[in-house]
Amino acid sequence: MTAQTEAAGPVTAEMYAEINAFYARHMRHLDDGRTDAWTAGFTEDGVFAQNVVPEPCRGRTAIAELGRAALAGLAERGLVRRHWFGMVDAEQRADGTVHTMYYALVFETPRGGKGVFHLSCTGADILVRRDGEWLVQDRLVVHDATD
Amino acid sequence: MTAQTEAAGPVTAEMYAEINAFYARHMRHLDDGRTDAWTAGFTEDGVFAQNVVPEPCRGRTAIAELGRAALAGLAERGLVRRHWFGMVDAEQRADGTVHTMYYALVFETPRGGKGVFHLSCTGADILVRRDGEWLVQDRLVVHDATD
Amino acid sequence: MTAQTEAAGPVTAEMYAEINAFYARHMRHLDDGRTDAWTAGFTEDGVFAQNVVPEPCRGRTAIAELGRAALAGLAERGLVRRHWFGMVDAEQRADGTVHTMYYALVFETPRGGKGVFHLSCTGADILVRRDGEWLVQDRLVVHDATD
Repeated sequence: MTAQTEAAGPVTAEMYAEINAFYARHMRHLDDGRTDAWTAGFTEDGVFAQNVVPEPCRGRTAIAELGRAALAGLAERGLVRRHWFGMVDAEQRADGTVHTMYYALVFETPRGGKGVFHLSCTGADILVRRDGEWLVQDRLVVHDATD
Repeated sequence: MTAQTEAAGPVTAEMYAEINAFYARHMRHLDDGRTDAWTAGFTEDGVFAQNVVPEPCRGRTAIAELGRAALAGLAERGLVRRHWFGMVDAEQRADGTVHTMYYALVFETPRGGKGVFHLSCTGADILVRRDGEWLVQDRLVVHDATD
Repeated sequence: MTAQTEAAGPVTAEMYAEINAFYARHMRHLDDGRTDAWTAGFTEDGVFAQNVVPEPCRGRTAIAELGRAALAGLAERGLVRRHWFGMVDAEQRADGTVHTMYYALVFETPRGGKGVFHLSCTGADILVRRDGEWLVQDRLVVHDATD
């Protein structure tokens, strides 16, 4: 029985804090329109799948395109979108990855108007640590409305 | 002055991370329909009180019944319910328990429909650690609408 | 190169847990009507600025007045207001301060009525640690609607 095959276990307090701060920074990049910085939170070959999209985005180029398209749509409608990740559970795996499960909410506010709660999802990520930074290797987002 | 009578103090970073992850896992169990796993997050003699319910539920059997009734109601109405716990404050007591105070939000999404913000509460738990797991010994949920 | 001029870095897990618990306690004070306890979460010369208010509040006396005015307005309308801080990112600076960026949501519930999502903001704080407590030296809140 080597470390590679040991059972999974909880993350450390350091990892839990880092991952929560990473999620805050990562989604803030997207919400503030910094698509490249958001995309850099995925590995080069990262996968971003959503149950409301037929095919997963594979790799940073495809993920960046998705991000830019979403932001263009919001800009056209004059909306500020905020992604809230919370209720994070996280588990270390023997291969060095961390598997997270979390809830995600989206709120939208029109410039000069009244904000609204937009939708609720769940997320499941496989995270890896590279050069002192957490990166998303695989993300699956499932919208509650279509679960 | 023994440890039993010492003043309360803040929790460690480890405890704070564990408790936040426990809340995520525990409420996810309920929201995903795993009543037994949710109920196992209470001690055998755990108490679950809400200011909108005349009598507290005492013990896992009563708590499980409450959970199943709530889930049956949601299933009938085709709703996904998500409980968000956040804004967690936590304090160690000399008797080894941890007392938490937190906010809780409930969001509901009809299958194929538009999610809504349902309600806001506050929560106060007494948690104990048994065999490496956090358990709820006592929970009081107060709905803002009827506070 | 001394510690005073070293580059900024991430906070420790201890600091991240403490700051999240501080935010919970601090805003709970305001939401539960304890203006003095809320105000004590700022330094004596603390600054509280909002992009929707022409001039920042400078010092605890001015901040307490703002808090009391807000609470009086809510009491008149019979509303419970809940401030949710989340998506917290935090960075240590060489001068010993911690700079945070976070999202904030406000929910309002009329007594006996239905709660609503009120608004979404972002926040940026400069925090200092004094006598074992975190305090806000400077806070800027930017409402999404008027960003």
